[in-house]
Amino acid sequence: MMKEKLYIIKIGGALIDDESLLEQFLDQFSEIQEKKILVHGGGKLATTLADKLGIEQKLVNGRRITDKDTLDVVAMVYAGSINKNIVAKLQQKKCKAIGFSGADANLIKATKREDSEIDFGFVGDINEKSINKKLISKLLKLKLVPVFSAITHDKKGHLFNTNADTIASVIAQALSAKYDVELLYCFDKEGVLEDVNQSESLIKRISEEDFFQLKEDNKLHKGILPKLENALEAVKNKVNNVFLIKETKLKNHIENHDAGTEICI
Amino acid sequence: MMKEKLYIIKIGGALIDDESLLEQFLDQFSEIQEKKILVHGGGKLATTLADKLGIEQKLVNGRRITDKDTLDVVAMVYAGSINKNIVAKLQQKKCKAIGFSGADANLIKATKREDSEIDFGFVGDINEKSINKKLISKLLKLKLVPVFSAITHDKKGHLFNTNADTIASVIAQALSAKYDVELLYCFDKEGVLEDVNQSESLIKRISEEDFFQLKEDNKLHKGILPKLENALEAVKNKVNNVFLIKETKLKNHIENHDAGTEICI
Repeated sequence: MMKEKLYIIKIGGALIDDESLLEQFLDQFSEIQEKKILVHGGGKLATTLADKLGIEQKLVNGRRITDKDTLDVVAMVYAGSINKNIVAKLQQKKCKAIGFSGADANLIKATKREDSEIDFGFVGDINEKSINKKLISKLLKLKLVPVFSAITHDKKGHLFNTNADTIASVIAQALSAKYDVELLYCFDKEGVLEDVNQSESLIKRISEEDFFQLKEDNKLHKGILPKLENALEAVKNKVNNVFLIKETKLKNHIENHDAGTEICI
Repeated sequence: MMKEKLYIIKIGGALIDDESLLEQFLDQFSEIQEKKILVHGGGKLATTLADKLGIEQKLVNGRRITDKDTLDVVAMVYAGSINKNIVAKLQQKKCKAIGFSGADANLIKATKREDSEIDFGFVGDINEKSINKKLISKLLKLKLVPVFSAITHDKKGHLFNTNADTIASVIAQALSAKYDVELLYCFDKEGVLEDVNQSESLIKRISEEDFFQLKEDNKLHKGILPKLENALEAVKNKVNNVFLIKETKLKNHIENHDAGTEICI
């Protein structure tokens, strides 16, 4: 039996912080006729708010720690402010958006990050089994469009912050048995570029081997690494199509499937 | 055909601000076997946060105005912080909680409050038709437990603040055609008291006539008026049972249906 198409689309902070760009993106997202899920990160708002409240960013060995105060801010901003504003905007565009944290209906159950050297605080790690895929399928069947913020929980009463790129990848992996999943990481570049300042240097296809080579040659700038790692993880775990594309080209990509960088095994 | 029982339970700020009381209440709420919906107001957190951010409370003719900055804080705190923390706690207690604002899946569509004298800002009014009762029923059938924050939207991209007592009442009215609804306003008093300092002065039953008499005699303190008005509105619109009860007596009331003050026509 042919599996039904499902788009899982991740957007990041730069888009969220730019109101007119966000509107433009959400217009394009709303027009997608197939089943779809949106996953969003946070923007500058969480940092701005933490600064105003005098909550200092904690670093241990150069790694960021999510202490309780930071988690409180992140949960408010991601699951409250950003999530509900995106949902309200999508509703205006006749898209049946329904906003979630991972705590809602136990949709994403994480475990606290374990590390022998650093206590990362309220950071949750997830894998395919973390996802309540049965309920997500039921919501999709009701023609709803889930919108996930990067907040998870441990089913022990604690909220966690989890990387939004990872959430998108893991949801895609979990739903690939049932759907023909296309995972799209939308960001402000055309895709993976050989030279980050030259949009013409777009690499159209990256395999795992290419990735390791590019990494070894120091050709990947830091910001794109987590996206690529999560994208590769998705491809290796049976997600049919994975792309990194420019956020303004979503519609174009949905129509022609040729924008950005395709990730393959 | 006998209608299925549905509890719609409203909790307020004082409970939310008291961590151990909240845990105790959520334990009792989790134990309810019948279908159920929780509606929560805000606590002191929104005010504290607004103060810290230097957002002043706006008053016009002594009436509170919700300007954009205040709405942003309220949306974050109610739909983000409080809602997600309650949902996470309920999930720990094996209650299949799913948290919502009214924007999610267009569950509560409000209209901006119209007033010839005052612009109240981002305040939404609702009535029975505001409620997406079809979807709420579907969620209840999936054995989910909706948890509503006091945030609504206008389907034009704007979020609103709406009184939580009103949300509970209007959801109860909208679902009464399908369910045998019992609406419970939980707060820190035994119910409506003749003398607010004497818990023995509990009034066991209040009709609309009694209400007007008590109001005329100045026997109702200000805080209880909106609850009573919303409770009466529910009874007048076919909600089967409406009570004001002490939050610590929820379990007791579910078992014996005799706590607090019953509101009747």
